[in-house]
Amino acid sequence: MATLTSPNVLLYAAPNTNADMRWFSRFHASDPLLALSAKGKKIGVVSLLEVTRARKESVFDEVLNLQDLLAGVRASNANAGIAEVVLALAARHGVNAFAVPSDFPASLYQRITALGLRLDIGEAPFFRRRVVKSAGEIAAIRAANRASSAGFKAVEKILAGSEIRRGNVWHGGRALTSERLKTAVEQACLSAGALNVAGLIVAAADQAVDCHCSGSGVIPANALIVVDVFPRSSATGYFGDMTRTYLKGRATAEQRRLVGTVRAAQQAALAAIKPGRSGAAVYKVVKDFFEAAGYATAVNAANGYQEGFFHGLGHGLGLDVHEEPSLGARGVAPLRAGMVVTVEPGLYYLGLGGCRIEDVVVVTATGCELLSRHPYRWEFA
Amino acid sequence: MATLTSPNVLLYAAPNTNADMRWFSRFHASDPLLALSAKGKKIGVVSLLEVTRARKESVFDEVLNLQDLLAGVRASNANAGIAEVVLALAARHGVNAFAVPSDFPASLYQRITALGLRLDIGEAPFFRRRVVKSAGEIAAIRAANRASSAGFKAVEKILAGSEIRRGNVWHGGRALTSERLKTAVEQACLSAGALNVAGLIVAAADQAVDCHCSGSGVIPANALIVVDVFPRSSATGYFGDMTRTYLKGRATAEQRRLVGTVRAAQQAALAAIKPGRSGAAVYKVVKDFFEAAGYATAVNAANGYQEGFFHGLGHGLGLDVHEEPSLGARGVAPLRAGMVVTVEPGLYYLGLGGCRIEDVVVVTATGCELLSRHPYRWEFA
Repeated sequence: MATLTSPNVLLYAAPNTNADMRWFSRFHASDPLLALSAKGKKIGVVSLLEVTRARKESVFDEVLNLQDLLAGVRASNANAGIAEVVLALAARHGVNAFAVPSDFPASLYQRITALGLRLDIGEAPFFRRRVVKSAGEIAAIRAANRASSAGFKAVEKILAGSEIRRGNVWHGGRALTSERLKTAVEQACLSAGALNVAGLIVAAADQAVDCHCSGSGVIPANALIVVDVFPRSSATGYFGDMTRTYLKGRATAEQRRLVGTVRAAQQAALAAIKPGRSGAAVYKVVKDFFEAAGYATAVNAANGYQEGFFHGLGHGLGLDVHEEPSLGARGVAPLRAGMVVTVEPGLYYLGLGGCRIEDVVVVTATGCELLSRHPYRWEFA
Repeated sequence: MATLTSPNVLLYAAPNTNADMRWFSRFHASDPLLALSAKGKKIGVVSLLEVTRARKESVFDEVLNLQDLLAGVRASNANAGIAEVVLALAARHGVNAFAVPSDFPASLYQRITALGLRLDIGEAPFFRRRVVKSAGEIAAIRAANRASSAGFKAVEKILAGSEIRRGNVWHGGRALTSERLKTAVEQACLSAGALNVAGLIVAAADQAVDCHCSGSGVIPANALIVVDVFPRSSATGYFGDMTRTYLKGRATAEQRRLVGTVRAAQQAALAAIKPGRSGAAVYKVVKDFFEAAGYATAVNAANGYQEGFFHGLGHGLGLDVHEEPSLGARGVAPLRAGMVVTVEPGLYYLGLGGCRIEDVVVVTATGCELLSRHPYRWEFA
């Protein structure tokens, strides 16, 4: 955790794609805007077109019209731009330095510092308070996970209503594909108020071993199908993130042991999460659990693929789909009550396929509480 | 248009939210990655989890594993990070300077330059070739506009099947709201392969005068309803952007004159677009047209609202919903064949409401060609 070296912050980003700006402003917009705090006051500088909406919808104490401010600084310098606007606002509020996030635009950084204002680049997480969620944020994440669950229900309905023909899954008189399942998930999420803006994974058999492959083509019978749904609520901007693994047909003993081991590892992880323990320590519980169960993690010399448990156990979730803290080897900071993380153990082997099971929890005073609810039924005969 | 001062470029951004990175890599991912060109070769540096997918899906000539490169630079310096990876790659390829975009992260900029590598910050548009669209890009924008059109069809079906009760529009036994119309548009866009990631406007009566207000609540009868749909194709990442204005009930003569004037202004703009002419010149055609028709643009002293034609005439469209070139007062650069712009005149007055009509064109050798098609029927009795 970095420490902000200036109590005043300066941001320039689009709230729809920059979580720090969305969190700071509680505004949504596709275009970048300028935001700063000066002596405890939050100031937003937005285009003329956004002024009225920003005054109604944002948490800025003051909303200023960018065009007016630009006209002001251009009265004495025709080439003045946003950097000069920042300088004028700093002077108006008696501020001589701002903390800026690590992704602050280099161009603006260079211009503002050339004008003599000090900018201290903070490390992520820029707003330490953003890592610990409020009750409202927790409710928003819970609601977004309900969209993931609605997606699983759509998948389950299709798998339950499908049949097997010539080794593939058929539904509605046609071979079932990853693409069709994704469309069903997207429609279900949309009806639950969320969009899969960052993607969606429906990957069957060996496709799931490349665990960021989104999946395509016909779904084979008797194959594990990893379905990872991380929708963003249209109303709040918060993400849900859940994964279930399915199979249509009949699982082998090896597939059953794989799925059972992943679920047991998840339960071990849930029992291990508590404030004060590091994300890395919880990750190690799962890593050791898999090793003890005989599931090795290594590059398979025969095919060059990473196999086993080769990703982190989880990540923070909020206005970003991946944010602090990490439940991985690098997650050395202690967990604190109010942090929200995914818990998503997975095992992947070419030939056997992949299994990942993911839920979301909030760290509580004594352990953790699930913010996602969906059954774990996975075999559809 | 800025000139890149180094032939080699360096980017660090997430392709799903950064259009330059998406264009350069032709990859999609939610997390940031490193990309560079060195002596004409495109190199991507991605997380272990993305290596296989990046090799299959991106246009990088070489895909490197970030974890491997980090391990390499950390052999001699335990605190080394991405900046040191960039330095090592620059040395490997004999490069001593990179051009970086204006939104390159300040933190990485500072670290890399502190290590002695020169970074030249380019102005937008960073990739000048991105402003002139290829045939494939034009087809992708056309397809995304078909999603907007599907949204309008959904609205029209609802308006045609609705009735008026106690001054409001009713549909399916309930008052029709902006929210319900938005849901119908979102479902129609999704079925057409696109998501409204940046929002969606269904704003009736005076709500439309704040022209970035997304709209809410019951739709009144006999009121203008601005429907602005800018969906992003899930397959390609390109945006569509179209607007139609509707009315359920019976329009007044004043409303008819407003809508007719906006449509005529759009036709005047379409006739004025040609290579060599500036966006500002086309904007002025519409500005003058509205003034000649008696529609003033000014702040209304009675209510403090901007009224009239107070936004630009259009903007570039592609992997960003707003990009270069501008059809506004600041659009001084000449249009060139292959540029894609929206053409969206609008007029807004409190009490009367707003009207905006928006289509998308590609500049051709002699004029422009529509990349959006949808009827202009607006009155639903």
